Amino acid sequence: MSLPPPFSLIRELVVRALAEDLAEGDVTTDALFPAAVPARGTIVAEEPEGLVVAGLAVAVEVFAQVDPALKCTLSLKDGDRAANGIVILTVRGDGRSMLRAERAALNFLQRLSGIATLTAKFCNAVKGYHVKIVDTRKTTPGMRALEKWAVTLGGGTNHRQSLGDGVLIKDNHLALSAGTGSAATSHHVAQACRLARERAPHRLKIEVESSTLEDVRAAIEGKADMILLDNMDVPTIRRAVDLVKGRALIEVSGGVTLANVREIAAAGPDLISIGALTHSAPAANLSMDIVPVRRRRSHTR
Amino acid sequence: MSLPPPFSLIRELVVRALAEDLAEGDVTTDALFPAAVPARGTIVAEEPEGLVVAGLAVAVEVFAQVDPALKCTLSLKDGDRAANGIVILTVRGDGRSMLRAERAALNFLQRLSGIATLTAKFCNAVKGYHVKIVDTRKTTPGMRALEKWAVTLGGGTNHRQSLGDGVLIKDNHLALSAGTGSAATSHHVAQACRLARERAPHRLKIEVESSTLEDVRAAIEGKADMILLDNMDVPTIRRAVDLVKGRALIEVSGGVTLANVREIAAAGPDLISIGALTHSAPAANLSMDIVPVRRRRSHTR
Amino acid sequence: MSLPPPFSLIRELVVRALAEDLAEGDVTTDALFPAAVPARGTIVAEEPEGLVVAGLAVAVEVFAQVDPALKCTLSLKDGDRAANGIVILTVRGDGRSMLRAERAALNFLQRLSGIATLTAKFCNAVKGYHVKIVDTRKTTPGMRALEKWAVTLGGGTNHRQSLGDGVLIKDNHLALSAGTGSAATSHHVAQACRLARERAPHRLKIEVESSTLEDVRAAIEGKADMILLDNMDVPTIRRAVDLVKGRALIEVSGGVTLANVREIAAAGPDLISIGALTHSAPAANLSMDIVPVRRRRSHTR
Amino acid sequence: MSLPPPFSLIRELVVRALAEDLAEGDVTTDALFPAAVPARGTIVAEEPEGLVVAGLAVAVEVFAQVDPALKCTLSLKDGDRAANGIVILTVRGDGRSMLRAERAALNFLQRLSGIATLTAKFCNAVKGYHVKIVDTRKTTPGMRALEKWAVTLGGGTNHRQSLGDGVLIKDNHLALSAGTGSAATSHHVAQACRLARERAPHRLKIEVESSTLEDVRAAIEGKADMILLDNMDVPTIRRAVDLVKGRALIEVSGGVTLANVREIAAAGPDLISIGALTHSAPAANLSMDIVPVRRRRSHTR
Amino acid sequence: MSLPPPFSLIRELVVRALAEDLAEGDVTTDALFPAAVPARGTIVAEEPEGLVVAGLAVAVEVFAQVDPALKCTLSLKDGDRAANGIVILTVRGDGRSMLRAERAALNFLQRLSGIATLTAKFCNAVKGYHVKIVDTRKTTPGMRALEKWAVTLGGGTNHRQSLGDGVLIKDNHLALSAGTGSAATSHHVAQACRLARERAPHRLKIEVESSTLEDVRAAIEGKADMILLDNMDVPTIRRAVDLVKGRALIEVSGGVTLANVREIAAAGPDLISIGALTHSAPAANLSMDIVPVRRRRSHTR
Amino acid sequence: MSLPPPFSLIRELVVRALAEDLAEGDVTTDALFPAAVPARGTIVAEEPEGLVVAGLAVAVEVFAQVDPALKCTLSLKDGDRAANGIVILTVRGDGRSMLRAERAALNFLQRLSGIATLTAKFCNAVKGYHVKIVDTRKTTPGMRALEKWAVTLGGGTNHRQSLGDGVLIKDNHLALSAGTGSAATSHHVAQACRLARERAPHRLKIEVESSTLEDVRAAIEGKADMILLDNMDVPTIRRAVDLVKGRALIEVSGGVTLANVREIAAAGPDLISIGALTHSAPAANLSMDIVPVRRRRSHTR
Repeated sequence: MSLPPPFSLIRELVVRALAEDLAEGDVTTDALFPAAVPARGTIVAEEPEGLVVAGLAVAVEVFAQVDPALKCTLSLKDGDRAANGIVILTVRGDGRSMLRAERAALNFLQRLSGIATLTAKFCNAVKGYHVKIVDTRKTTPGMRALEKWAVTLGGGTNHRQSLGDGVLIKDNHLALSAGTGSAATSHHVAQACRLARERAPHRLKIEVESSTLEDVRAAIEGKADMILLDNMDVPTIRRAVDLVKGRALIEVSGGVTLANVREIAAAGPDLISIGALTHSAPAANLSMDIVPVRRRRSHTR
Repeated sequence: MSLPPPFSLIRELVVRALAEDLAEGDVTTDALFPAAVPARGTIVAEEPEGLVVAGLAVAVEVFAQVDPALKCTLSLKDGDRAANGIVILTVRGDGRSMLRAERAALNFLQRLSGIATLTAKFCNAVKGYHVKIVDTRKTTPGMRALEKWAVTLGGGTNHRQSLGDGVLIKDNHLALSAGTGSAATSHHVAQACRLARERAPHRLKIEVESSTLEDVRAAIEGKADMILLDNMDVPTIRRAVDLVKGRALIEVSGGVTLANVREIAAAGPDLISIGALTHSAPAANLSMDIVPVRRRRSHTR
Repeated sequence: MSLPPPFSLIRELVVRALAEDLAEGDVTTDALFPAAVPARGTIVAEEPEGLVVAGLAVAVEVFAQVDPALKCTLSLKDGDRAANGIVILTVRGDGRSMLRAERAALNFLQRLSGIATLTAKFCNAVKGYHVKIVDTRKTTPGMRALEKWAVTLGGGTNHRQSLGDGVLIKDNHLALSAGTGSAATSHHVAQACRLARERAPHRLKIEVESSTLEDVRAAIEGKADMILLDNMDVPTIRRAVDLVKGRALIEVSGGVTLANVREIAAAGPDLISIGALTHSAPAANLSMDIVPVRRRRSHTR
Repeated sequence: MSLPPPFSLIRELVVRALAEDLAEGDVTTDALFPAAVPARGTIVAEEPEGLVVAGLAVAVEVFAQVDPALKCTLSLKDGDRAANGIVILTVRGDGRSMLRAERAALNFLQRLSGIATLTAKFCNAVKGYHVKIVDTRKTTPGMRALEKWAVTLGGGTNHRQSLGDGVLIKDNHLALSAGTGSAATSHHVAQACRLARERAPHRLKIEVESSTLEDVRAAIEGKADMILLDNMDVPTIRRAVDLVKGRALIEVSGGVTLANVREIAAAGPDLISIGALTHSAPAANLSMDIVPVRRRRSHTR
Repeated sequence: MSLPPPFSLIRELVVRALAEDLAEGDVTTDALFPAAVPARGTIVAEEPEGLVVAGLAVAVEVFAQVDPALKCTLSLKDGDRAANGIVILTVRGDGRSMLRAERAALNFLQRLSGIATLTAKFCNAVKGYHVKIVDTRKTTPGMRALEKWAVTLGGGTNHRQSLGDGVLIKDNHLALSAGTGSAATSHHVAQACRLARERAPHRLKIEVESSTLEDVRAAIEGKADMILLDNMDVPTIRRAVDLVKGRALIEVSGGVTLANVREIAAAGPDLISIGALTHSAPAANLSMDIVPVRRRRSHTR
Repeated sequence: MSLPPPFSLIRELVVRALAEDLAEGDVTTDALFPAAVPARGTIVAEEPEGLVVAGLAVAVEVFAQVDPALKCTLSLKDGDRAANGIVILTVRGDGRSMLRAERAALNFLQRLSGIATLTAKFCNAVKGYHVKIVDTRKTTPGMRALEKWAVTLGGGTNHRQSLGDGVLIKDNHLALSAGTGSAATSHHVAQACRLARERAPHRLKIEVESSTLEDVRAAIEGKADMILLDNMDVPTIRRAVDLVKGRALIEVSGGVTLANVREIAAAGPDLISIGALTHSAPAANLSMDIVPVRRRRSHTR
């Protein structure tokens, strides 16, 4: 499980989220409460089957930016599983500040916990097989680092973070290398692998997309380190695994669902990548309750 | 249907998306293609039931930022419906630049079209009833303006954009106004409405959340302009509508799905708000094909 | 009186202000004082008739950004009235840091207190009448949130914060809706109100500008929630009030001065909006004195 | 007359201004006009005594950022004088875009033209004397470069832009250098000048504030290049000028108004600095009219 | 040779560079030239042994941001070798704009060309050996993407761009994994390799630092993909190469100079990494000449 | 010795540096250490002849941004000389955070200390002569304030920070003022000085570049405050000094090295400016060691 993204990134994302929600103030709270209201707020998991918590570090920063005097206490930590009804985070201070921070904090928590929870479901579905569930670059613009962190909190593994940190030769690369008037063939697969090995940064493995078994053979011939099987059915995946015989890592991609992921895992690939982890995970249900508390005598500034 | 957000906001969001994906370059494309490759790229809708296009203005900016020499042609415009297999956008120029821009452009288009398409499904489901489908503030941090624009492209209506542009007294406000040791009652509903009317900006209507019919009565007594019925069942919604008799707009919220939205609409509310429009819309399926083309003699610089 | 804008906005504005003043250092202070000079600085009100303090939260952030070791003590709080000669804020620490921070801190305080003080004068001038003094969007680019906050500190009320949070149909909208070759008439006023009610966000009231009594009648017919009387003389305002009979809020705008505002208030409008509150308020006079103090034995790091 | 600030600064300021006004869209225009409305907008001077135009470069950028398809034509250029009723700028294109851009464009133009116009009044008032009207660092946070540019457009001269580009030893510097328990004397004035000459960047002149003639003598003794006479009455200024005999430039500051500036100029200083040029200039009155035009056949994309 | 970093990154870096140099205007040019001066500027290589050009894309953006009316013509392209005295870039337009842009444009070109030129010297020194010259993460803060691009223009290869795109187990990692009170041994080298292979992103090769031949053996045992020989002398490098027998890539690092790089290359490593490429490359000498030209009749706006 | 740049600038530069290095996380550290590792890190000087420390304020901010729980202790302060092997800074806390921060902290320290150390060498070389070593605007884009601060820490003096804070008439200004078809002569030197004195900000001295003794005479005639002798040999510099007789400050520029700077100083100029201080200073050698420590019982939150 990876460390969270650097604090300065989190801070910047929170600045933007609050700019969206609070740049014109909070007209409701301002109208109702002219003075501070000592209060306690609790963020509670509301998913019948539980959820995997992700984003607490961000939520805490939301409260701090809205009002540095708010105090947060965490009952769980990022990556923990929260049963339905469990309190995850408690915040104390001026209730008006909580009302201003509530939506932004929940928006981060719900999206990230949604991703972590969906990832955990996929990981759970393939339990027992030696296969990794990996994400893709199909993330929300501006949120990639957080979303990929959430994937790891759910037990998943990160594929490329950007076009700069992994060589992946895809169908469009092959089409361009084939030239005008002719489709890409297995010949181009092998050739592209060789070119990449020659010219790409030495620290990166070479991965190539294959849509047929002939492509897979060419990839092996081109000494690819990893082969992406794109949208193959399970029997073909199995034959590809047999064909490769461990000479390259095999990644399966395309059309993977909770319903078919275990069957795919059984076919023997090393990795299964799923765009939906980040582009279509439903938000996890979390809510915040704010109640007034008796004012305490305070020794603080 | 609203105009897109201001161009400078779109530009900034694209800058951030490209920073995520391209800050370390594109090692694959750099390795394979040392020189420009004249090409044509097409973005194609891949949803069996079609989709509502949203985000073309953003995708065009992605291509422009990656390479100002790329030329985009639009076959459809934002808000149009695209049948399965339809080409939405064509781009011409150096294929290497398309490979660099592809993912960022698709990430915007898929998320926004996903939201517009889901919104359109809800609007379609209530066809014939005089009710508006509205969004919430449950948006992706940093993407609110774009996501709310997508909702309007799907035929929906925007609720508050921020805490500054609408008065909405929610359960947490009522709890705080009740004070320590006692739950909020209908009395607090009426009183909060009066306070808000007195002190909130005059240009805004007053909306209050009600969880019982007693609350609804109190809201009317407090002269609320709008009443949010929170998580009520359909018979109760119907009785609330009868009770209000047009003296306030009625918004229904909580637990709305494509399965029950028509039944809710039949109960007679003015608005139905749905957080899932923005927080849980699955990405629309769109793909990009890039093929090499014959180099044209060019008169340009 | 509203809460200050979110802290992250204040911080960002202070970053920019210091970038303008300190990016190349402080050549005078650097030349004169090679080592720290323990000192006490005081910010003092220098307006014969007193002033309304606005911007302390910002000034404190200026000192903190220049030197986190400076300690500020506030004698008054934002929104308080300061008599001539009164100390508002005291800062202790290295005098060199105060010399660097002085101008930026005063620039914020003087502008914001100037706005709050002018607003308070207008509010005072209409005392006894049930009318609100409201601002406009005629603010300094980049400073809107702070300037509108200052208006509320002076006792005023905020009109729209942006084009997104209030419907206000103005003369230019009417001209465009009239089409080429013909001026806008009362007919267009009523029609525009109806269109806006149909299509604008439901949470917002509809306001329309009227320059004649005929327009006012049309606005009522179009069921406007608010009517902006533009540049009308007092007798006409009075007739408009009679005509409307409480069916809409009436806002008076244009040519309002401290000399005539009471007479206008007597005519019975609900709101009087004044662009000068933000675009032409003279800076409040505030000064900072810095004196050396004996070095204290310190237990701090 | 100086060139405008670098384009990238102007662009950034416009981005921020539009973020304030348009981040949530323009609900009025969106509601009234579902399709483009070909129109012509004109910005007109509305000051009985005319005004000095400042900020056209910024206004043009506002229109470009809102809608790159808008075309601006300038009838005057920055620094020109505009008589009452004169059209300064004409814009053609979609009227909806003009409605969105209008307020931001006017906010820049009104503030900057207000500063240029007030500066021109002061310059005019001292016509015939060999004295320069100069500004101060009492500018609006974030707007310094634009405001100082406006001063030059009105015929004024810029004093320091920041603490880094001029040595100015002020009363607070002298107080700190005197040490605890004793007030600063002329002795400290001379000593500070010598220190600054020794240690400050060689490319900068040394200026020192003097509040008595004794201080002026000490400044000459310390070989100051410039002497700031702070809040002196006119006879004392005259005696200071006699005393200095051209060995240093003399700047007068404090309490300068249009009523007394000519008398001060007659006393013979080289420079008169006026904080009000930037901190209290009333906005110049400018308005924008938008009218629909017949749609032209267009050959453009 | 890689494509330049994305245009939006270049634009942002130029914005910052101009903010440093031009935020307070150009007092010299403003004073001397009140009107435009048609001119031609040329940027010329001034290195007796020639230089490798890097940064033209950035210099062109500098001129565009200062004045969009300036026209640039390139005689060479990034990566080309420029002999002493050769004109690299010609710019036409207002000479005042060139004076404002000159220093910023040269600062980018000189640093980047300095890096490219030094890299080319190292590449040249090892000509004939199958070894790559690679950079490190020892770059100027904020300039990494540009500096790494310059390395490729000089013929070098990029090592890691960030901590996220390559696994490199260094001495400090080994020390931490050894625990308190005991130094890291070869045992820790092998163990760390195994852990990394198990847990690090699958798309990345595993590289480990080795300071002894024993470590090298352990790295092979741990199935490292790459071994970094840190500060070894040439005979030891040779023995390490023999020992590894192609089972991993070998990178040499530490103390590499133009004087010894060929001898190191002869020892047979796959890669030689050199921090000085980016952290200590002297600026390449380039100058700009600006001469007035006759005003041309212009057809432009 | 000047104070460091304002904290907000330092913070922003650190944000950017960490964005480059950590935006995709630290895959190595994440893979090896799933839990916190209590550790102590030390930054050590590794220059045989010692170095001048510069940038500690920045390094401390790097550690704070990566992990606010890290505690830094400084053994030296900015501007101090560090002998070979001396510990400069010690940091305590989670070793994983140190591994993430190490490179960014060192990159700042090495560049800035490199500049301070080189400056100190030049200052030392001219010891005994009354001459200042000054920098130029040939700085790394984005790093100017830090690099110029490093120059002062090494004992040097800052020349212009930007085009806005000093008048320096250079060869290109003279060429433009000469007009088409004729080279600039001494006549233009004198004339440009007069123009600048008339029109440039009064607070700035006038400096002019001279390449011949005739130019020097013209500069004196034009009453220049400072004369820049460009690329003159030592005998000519001596004659220029004799000629000027203290009527202006003399700055020598061009071709200055550690080998010839003392001879130049002996010729009697007031200032010697050296671009290499900032554009070609080699990085100072500093390293960081991280060792695990026994976990302490902790009383902190």
